[in-house]
Amino acid sequence: MSTVDLTLDEISALIIRVMLANGCDDENASALADIMTRAERDGSHSHGLFRVPGYVKALRSGKVNGKAKPTVTKITPAVIQVDGHGCFAPIAQAAGLPVLAEAAKEIGIGALSLIGVHHFASLWPETEYLADRGLVGIACTAYMPAVAPAGSTTALFGTNPISFAWPRPGSTPVVYDMATASMAMGDIQIAARDGRTVPAGTGLDQDGNPTTDPAKIAKGVLLPFGGYKGSAISMMVELLAAGLTGEQFSFEAKENDNGDGGPARGGEMILAMSPDIIAGPDWPEHVEGFVAKLNEMDGVRLPGARRHKNRLDTGARAVNAALLETIEGLVT
Amino acid sequence: MSTVDLTLDEISALIIRVMLANGCDDENASALADIMTRAERDGSHSHGLFRVPGYVKALRSGKVNGKAKPTVTKITPAVIQVDGHGCFAPIAQAAGLPVLAEAAKEIGIGALSLIGVHHFASLWPETEYLADRGLVGIACTAYMPAVAPAGSTTALFGTNPISFAWPRPGSTPVVYDMATASMAMGDIQIAARDGRTVPAGTGLDQDGNPTTDPAKIAKGVLLPFGGYKGSAISMMVELLAAGLTGEQFSFEAKENDNGDGGPARGGEMILAMSPDIIAGPDWPEHVEGFVAKLNEMDGVRLPGARRHKNRLDTGARAVNAALLETIEGLVT
Repeated sequence: MSTVDLTLDEISALIIRVMLANGCDDENASALADIMTRAERDGSHSHGLFRVPGYVKALRSGKVNGKAKPTVTKITPAVIQVDGHGCFAPIAQAAGLPVLAEAAKEIGIGALSLIGVHHFASLWPETEYLADRGLVGIACTAYMPAVAPAGSTTALFGTNPISFAWPRPGSTPVVYDMATASMAMGDIQIAARDGRTVPAGTGLDQDGNPTTDPAKIAKGVLLPFGGYKGSAISMMVELLAAGLTGEQFSFEAKENDNGDGGPARGGEMILAMSPDIIAGPDWPEHVEGFVAKLNEMDGVRLPGARRHKNRLDTGARAVNAALLETIEGLVT
Repeated sequence: MSTVDLTLDEISALIIRVMLANGCDDENASALADIMTRAERDGSHSHGLFRVPGYVKALRSGKVNGKAKPTVTKITPAVIQVDGHGCFAPIAQAAGLPVLAEAAKEIGIGALSLIGVHHFASLWPETEYLADRGLVGIACTAYMPAVAPAGSTTALFGTNPISFAWPRPGSTPVVYDMATASMAMGDIQIAARDGRTVPAGTGLDQDGNPTTDPAKIAKGVLLPFGGYKGSAISMMVELLAAGLTGEQFSFEAKENDNGDGGPARGGEMILAMSPDIIAGPDWPEHVEGFVAKLNEMDGVRLPGARRHKNRLDTGARAVNAALLETIEGLVT
């Protein structure tokens, strides 16, 4: 694979240039550049520059408003709602997260619901934002049916990711961010290309039969991770991200999407909790005892550790040359 | 199996008699009878009368104080802590849940942490309590290492159950309550007795090797459900139920338990959220649209539906005669 070295500043500047050329104002372009540059910094390439063409499609079709100005409403001292008015999620998060963090630090717990947003990124930027401020963060979002509830053969749930971050003062947080689907459809397609099988329980063929052949799953449907229990978690994500925000469930997102390949409109629910207030001041030492136990086990790696290690590298990143060419072609 | 028919009132009266005879005061005995009678009512026999001998062991050893009077502290308008002072969890819940529900109805979200309690029951009574009042409920607890984190071969996590309930005005809630272990150790033992194999990923033998032989897992260790993703959920339960309450992690519970067979001391974290406040007044109709989609899928049953169906039967329950004899023998 041919690559081109770009510094993180260069990556950010490129994204801003592309977004400005496609209808974003400065604030929206900067919020998108920030989220994608952080993904590249951490080695999460699937959520970095790789996403630029999808963002641009949604801007060009008019589905997403690159000049939207999110409005923040503090419904109660602990409940904040941000209406993105059709923006991409990052600028709505930038507006809402400081208010959520403030509320949780004061009252111990808070909920931030995002509505009218188009989410196309990882969720760890939200939960890490909270953890960096000494708060526990939980975030989830849901849209576009891709996963059949356990027992059924038809997609109803989205891939429904959930992220959780636990703060570690003076260190990077313990943080996971995972789809509640068994596997990303992209990974199914790669397995099919490479002629590998996938584990039982990953998905069904187009007749609804279990299969370990990824080519058949690509024409069929994914299943939730972990059978009935994972399906219950995925259902919870639908209810929190859509039922509790008032935004679209996955099946509604599909009914109302224009199919331009960019992210559908959906909701996001973000919770923040203060261990200082709920557990009291001794929590850091107490939790470090648990983290140490986990860390010293053979075969166990703290969730998030790989990204945090990549983050230490402040040097240039090797960007896929073909992708770079595609992205530069979007500055028209 | 020989059985004896008992009405729910008779079951409750029996439990109260046993608990009073073993050092409980009226309030503690009633709270225990309430929780176990509700389990019998719903057909959850593993959490009904079956638990009585375990409760009595912990009372007789002095590990649990059957006369404890939980104290409720409202740390902020949204954060409540109940210290059980060594009680069984039900009386601490009875003290804290009304305060939590009140807080969540007013401010939109609330957290209730239970410390100094011994939890030996299901978690759906807590989350259903909240759902019956129009609130979303999440509860989790953790103690006694029984599950090896994915990738490792040694128990660190408890079976770490998590329950979630979504309110449905005029109907029973959508509610699940599940261990984050792949399977209950009791079910492993039953499979071993019956000579059945269990699915790959259920557990490891005593040398840390994967096996589908339940007899070998019974001597080895359980795994979380759903591999690495389920392990992340189980870790979250440890952090919420112990890190965020300030109570013992599973490994600490084991270090400090007297091994009498009753429940170890642990914490419980309960969250409540108001969809009226967070989503606004249209949520019931919106969510019913999703629930209807789920309900009409072949092969899908709403979580909790089996229990709620059993609940409709107000008649006598067939109680295992040998268990009944054991329990009556505890009134001494």
